[in-house]
Amino acid sequence: MTETSMHSHDSIRAVQWRGDHLRLLDQRRLPQEECWFDCHDAAEVTQAIRDLAVRGAPAIGIAAAWGVAMAARQNAPMDAALAMLRAARPTAVNLMWALDRMKKRIAAGADAGALAAEAQAIQDQDLAANRKMGELGAALIAAHAGVLTHCNTGSLATAGYGTALGVIRAGVAAGRIERVYAGETRPWQQGARLTMWELVRDGIPAQLIADSAAAHLMKSGAVQWVIVGADRIAANGDVANKIGTYQLAIAAKYHGVRFMVVAPSSTIDMATGTGEDIEIELRDPAELLHAAGQRTVVEGAHAWNPVFDVTPAELITAIVTERGVIERPGSIAMQAMFGW
Amino acid sequence: MTETSMHSHDSIRAVQWRGDHLRLLDQRRLPQEECWFDCHDAAEVTQAIRDLAVRGAPAIGIAAAWGVAMAARQNAPMDAALAMLRAARPTAVNLMWALDRMKKRIAAGADAGALAAEAQAIQDQDLAANRKMGELGAALIAAHAGVLTHCNTGSLATAGYGTALGVIRAGVAAGRIERVYAGETRPWQQGARLTMWELVRDGIPAQLIADSAAAHLMKSGAVQWVIVGADRIAANGDVANKIGTYQLAIAAKYHGVRFMVVAPSSTIDMATGTGEDIEIELRDPAELLHAAGQRTVVEGAHAWNPVFDVTPAELITAIVTERGVIERPGSIAMQAMFGW
Repeated sequence: MTETSMHSHDSIRAVQWRGDHLRLLDQRRLPQEECWFDCHDAAEVTQAIRDLAVRGAPAIGIAAAWGVAMAARQNAPMDAALAMLRAARPTAVNLMWALDRMKKRIAAGADAGALAAEAQAIQDQDLAANRKMGELGAALIAAHAGVLTHCNTGSLATAGYGTALGVIRAGVAAGRIERVYAGETRPWQQGARLTMWELVRDGIPAQLIADSAAAHLMKSGAVQWVIVGADRIAANGDVANKIGTYQLAIAAKYHGVRFMVVAPSSTIDMATGTGEDIEIELRDPAELLHAAGQRTVVEGAHAWNPVFDVTPAELITAIVTERGVIERPGSIAMQAMFGW
Repeated sequence: MTETSMHSHDSIRAVQWRGDHLRLLDQRRLPQEECWFDCHDAAEVTQAIRDLAVRGAPAIGIAAAWGVAMAARQNAPMDAALAMLRAARPTAVNLMWALDRMKKRIAAGADAGALAAEAQAIQDQDLAANRKMGELGAALIAAHAGVLTHCNTGSLATAGYGTALGVIRAGVAAGRIERVYAGETRPWQQGARLTMWELVRDGIPAQLIADSAAAHLMKSGAVQWVIVGADRIAANGDVANKIGTYQLAIAAKYHGVRFMVVAPSSTIDMATGTGEDIEIELRDPAELLHAAGQRTVVEGAHAWNPVFDVTPAELITAIVTERGVIERPGSIAMQAMFGW
């Protein structure tokens, strides 16, 4: 029995180390094409992160760690490789966390082999953390539940299994989740393109909705939990995640729907006091003005394209990490679990 | 001076009677192409409404009235024409209102000429109502305001000038509105394709946002009002409008942003007690699963595609009609202005 087949609804591994290079499933081309491409050095990994060929906070961190490992094999200047990878995207803290972990090993004199082992450990530990979070999160969900998720937090966004989507995999496998809804997640359509692809591929029945249909769905009584991932969690429990998460949390509160954030402890940034201190990435307005390479909005139109937002802790029912669950998150509970 | 040039930011007329046929600006093809097409009978008008070539609650009513007028010219069976047009779309009550108005004239023995005059009156009165609502709505807005709108409620959706977009035209012309934001309005992208086209064409600077970025925008303090149209307003002030309106209203309440609904009195349906009694149109899931004729979501995926939702009166700051403004709408205020 293979490692993955022991766990149901879990067949996808999008970040693969191939002995001397990194193979990535190109997330820009899903679901139309399942196209793999290889990164042979840190610069190619940086480009893949910046271009969203690999995305999802944990997956970015893992890919970056492999970028460092390749730089070491090639005797490239390590400081430059670390700096280049660190600048690839600003919001997800897992990127910084993984690079700091590699940097510590470099400072301790680790050779190329040891750095590759460290990257592999980061990847393996992420998968293990996801399985653990799946168990912990699914245990919070009562029978006959419907859930709504946002963006893609699955195998594509992680070493495998996923964070929020891992909880959904576990909840479906346990028979507790009966209805799964996914928001499209404009403008990049991670929900429509990636989450639906994962769910269909792993045999989990689900329905896609427009992002703006979420409140109407909640009013219908079909969902009991909104389950999302995170790109960074501040010391007070505020959560930066894909644009639209905040809006879902407000709608959930209004309807008495519970709101779960699922993220490995590498997403927690105790050095950031509150969500207000988190840099929100603004991406190219072209993402809203074009589709499939065609201009879809009148020439001369402008757009504002923040791709993350901050959900205040007060709107969150539970933060699920591999170290445990924090219900009604706040500074004291966060400090107790993640403080020094 | 022409009729339209007296009013600034107002150059578009998408529904035009040409003496013996109806000419419509094809809203499916904007903004890539400004393509006009002609309807020569009630069946062609019905098809145009069903296919969204003409859309927007007031514009649908006007087009349907011209469909009846053409049926009369052609000595077509009037009951069949009325029934066919009435069934074209279920949610917007303006369609039923316009057809009932035509039916009353038919019952009173009106000939084809008189029915054409009635259709023209419906169209002219809609334009006049929009101008009046523009004045009334803009007067509610304090200086230096930012506003967010949803869907398309402009000249394209009406006889001209628009409902919510008419208030924005008036507020910009008066110098009170300084920032205009429009949500994309998935899945049909009325905001991205149509509202941005109107705003650019009529010289109103605006920024497009993803629907799910609205709460993040509100938190930034950039908008003081959300201004939307309506497809049907129930006797208690509940408002059916484009999917996503409800979510915006919840987010507005959470942020203390005011929420204005702008609709002619033909949108008010005192025979419908509350929003719960309004039929919400479900459209083809294909609208979420395809883009530009291409499948964009994995084969085997399902979608749920309600295209309207209901915003409860308690979330609405003001309903603006051509008859006057109802602040904090509720059954008593609605009955006082629109009851028998």
